[in-house]
Amino acid sequence: MNKGRLEAFSDGVFAIAITLLVLTIARPSNFRHLGEQLVDRWPSFAAYVVSFAVIGIMWLNHHSIFVHFARVDRAFVYVNMLLLLSVVFIPYPTGIFGDALKRGEGEKVAAIVYSVAMTVNAFSWAALWLYASLRRRLLSDDFPESERRTATILFTIGPVFYSIAIAIAFANAYACLAYHGVLAAYYALDPLSRRAARGSPAASST
Amino acid sequence: MNKGRLEAFSDGVFAIAITLLVLTIARPSNFRHLGEQLVDRWPSFAAYVVSFAVIGIMWLNHHSIFVHFARVDRAFVYVNMLLLLSVVFIPYPTGIFGDALKRGEGEKVAAIVYSVAMTVNAFSWAALWLYASLRRRLLSDDFPESERRTATILFTIGPVFYSIAIAIAFANAYACLAYHGVLAAYYALDPLSRRAARGSPAASST
Amino acid sequence: MNKGRLEAFSDGVFAIAITLLVLTIARPSNFRHLGEQLVDRWPSFAAYVVSFAVIGIMWLNHHSIFVHFARVDRAFVYVNMLLLLSVVFIPYPTGIFGDALKRGEGEKVAAIVYSVAMTVNAFSWAALWLYASLRRRLLSDDFPESERRTATILFTIGPVFYSIAIAIAFANAYACLAYHGVLAAYYALDPLSRRAARGSPAASST
Amino acid sequence: MNKGRLEAFSDGVFAIAITLLVLTIARPSNFRHLGEQLVDRWPSFAAYVVSFAVIGIMWLNHHSIFVHFARVDRAFVYVNMLLLLSVVFIPYPTGIFGDALKRGEGEKVAAIVYSVAMTVNAFSWAALWLYASLRRRLLSDDFPESERRTATILFTIGPVFYSIAIAIAFANAYACLAYHGVLAAYYALDPLSRRAARGSPAASST
Repeated sequence: MNKGRLEAFSDGVFAIAITLLVLTIARPSNFRHLGEQLVDRWPSFAAYVVSFAVIGIMWLNHHSIFVHFARVDRAFVYVNMLLLLSVVFIPYPTGIFGDALKRGEGEKVAAIVYSVAMTVNAFSWAALWLYASLRRRLLSDDFPESERRTATILFTIGPVFYSIAIAIAFANAYACLAYHGVLAAYYALDPLSRRAARGSPAASST
Repeated sequence: MNKGRLEAFSDGVFAIAITLLVLTIARPSNFRHLGEQLVDRWPSFAAYVVSFAVIGIMWLNHHSIFVHFARVDRAFVYVNMLLLLSVVFIPYPTGIFGDALKRGEGEKVAAIVYSVAMTVNAFSWAALWLYASLRRRLLSDDFPESERRTATILFTIGPVFYSIAIAIAFANAYACLAYHGVLAAYYALDPLSRRAARGSPAASST
Repeated sequence: MNKGRLEAFSDGVFAIAITLLVLTIARPSNFRHLGEQLVDRWPSFAAYVVSFAVIGIMWLNHHSIFVHFARVDRAFVYVNMLLLLSVVFIPYPTGIFGDALKRGEGEKVAAIVYSVAMTVNAFSWAALWLYASLRRRLLSDDFPESERRTATILFTIGPVFYSIAIAIAFANAYACLAYHGVLAAYYALDPLSRRAARGSPAASST
Repeated sequence: MNKGRLEAFSDGVFAIAITLLVLTIARPSNFRHLGEQLVDRWPSFAAYVVSFAVIGIMWLNHHSIFVHFARVDRAFVYVNMLLLLSVVFIPYPTGIFGDALKRGEGEKVAAIVYSVAMTVNAFSWAALWLYASLRRRLLSDDFPESERRTATILFTIGPVFYSIAIAIAFANAYACLAYHGVLAAYYALDPLSRRAARGSPAASST
């Protein structure tokens, strides 16, 4: 398997999943009170923005770590496929979450479903990283050992953060959505990928 | 972050968003009077064409300015993500605008929503350009200083043009849609990108 | 404008439009008589296959002629955008055509709409070719003059063929769909692109 | 026809088809009993996972065999188009299969339709391989003759495996879905592509 083609395929899937998010916002049914209907839909817009941020940052982090892989193997392709499976799924719980908050029915269940989907996703990221980095299996030689340890901690802590989201979902659905926004911001600022983005001169050229 | 991969991802998002526009045109429900139903839908077709032109020209301008960037950094990736967020959203107000005009209900609200979405988009473009060009942060050395000033004026004037669209929306929804068509034509002919398209010999080769 | 990026963007749009065709086949509503419902939908499946063939062959021909362009300019990008506008639109009349034939209502109108959409598309192809080939504007030097004349005849005859489809639509909707299938087969076998596909050694290598 | 562009187009179609699968899971209608509604939908989730695995592995195998092609010709492009036609179609029977199992109506028909769609797909794969490998038409010189024979057996046996799925569909729809999952796993582990994935040093580098 060619690393470049795997990246291109993954990029395509990220790009499509992020764009399909717009289909999760329910179209208004009553145009006589269009303004009110759209205002009522604010949770759908909020869920759209949060999921967009989540997928966008995932795409960025996907790139950030791929830079450090010297090669890929077949098992890695399957773990990556598992990750994409959970990314492609995101529009579904996003749509339900926004709808439930808008209707004021089933918010708790929707928040739990959304958080579980994200937790599964976090586990996939951890699996991807652990598979690639254990005994430096796929890592390129210039990736420093110290950074590997930091990254391993960050990736294995991800499922913990998202499990907390499930707990918050039981308490309050709005707080849960906000917490997902905060987690996205955290991952946007997280040190590993920030360093990776700065990257080596070779990675940042072209 | 690799500039090439950021462009490819953005291209993918532009391509998908522009193609999803076709889903904004409501399917006819009464096939016995199919002809009339389709004729009644002309505002949806018009909105489809205008939004297609808008996204198509945005894609072109995205390319036009990326040619002049020597590199990208992480903050820039986020500003670009903000831009994509507003691009991906376009099919939603497009669908509402066409529907409202066809039903003759909620046209004013729909026109305002559409124009606000475009204004947010214009602000994202201004942010993208200002971030990249201030103190020539990401500009390549061969981009002339004089052109930088022209471009800055053009990008910061964009939100003004689109704010005018909001004002027109309050007066007349059809005039508002027409005005968006005119703005698209203006950006299609705008001097900066025209020059960029002509480009340097290096840029215009394969 | 970079020719490679224009091709990649066009490829993306072709790939998405061809994939969205699957959404044009209406989902069954009565699962108790699922078999009958699916059999009744055969015109939707037929329309799906015909439109898939049409877009697929267009994509191939798009590639075939781009091989012969030495460069692209801004006006060409707009003509190409016009072509993509009509490609992206295809799923809409496809869905209507299949639905109308299945219901046995509005078939004539649906066949006309489908054929008009294809005629507009044929005009876009003619415009694309004429713009690029007149006075050999964008043609590469090794494209023989004799072939240019053949190609010009083939591209300008396209709208004629598709106008005939409109005439057939007035007579019989099923015959019209079959005729579109025949036209797709014709373009699949047409001499210009066949020659282009064989190509020069440079074009056929990776 | 350029092999690289054909691969890129195919990759795009695979990526979009796999992402559209999420649209096959019906949105809940009753948010008061959201939890139960989602649990009731488990067959839709299962069908989503199976089809995702099927398309993902197909994409991988597509890559695996393309590595061994020295070039492509026009007829091959058409056979590949036929394959894509059946790939793009997959979301349709997937949606029906999940829905039918959930409703407890039409399961048998849905399982048969799903299995027939997969059998057509398997025939397309066989056609693709036979066209490319007969008399080593498109094979690169370094592809060993012994492996060609193995691959031919594997590809021509595919339709047999999927025809068995049709037979199972007549007996039990759930067993049929499980069998499709098993087939996906089989293809994920199949020796040809595993060897191809390991590949030559040239193929596994970036």
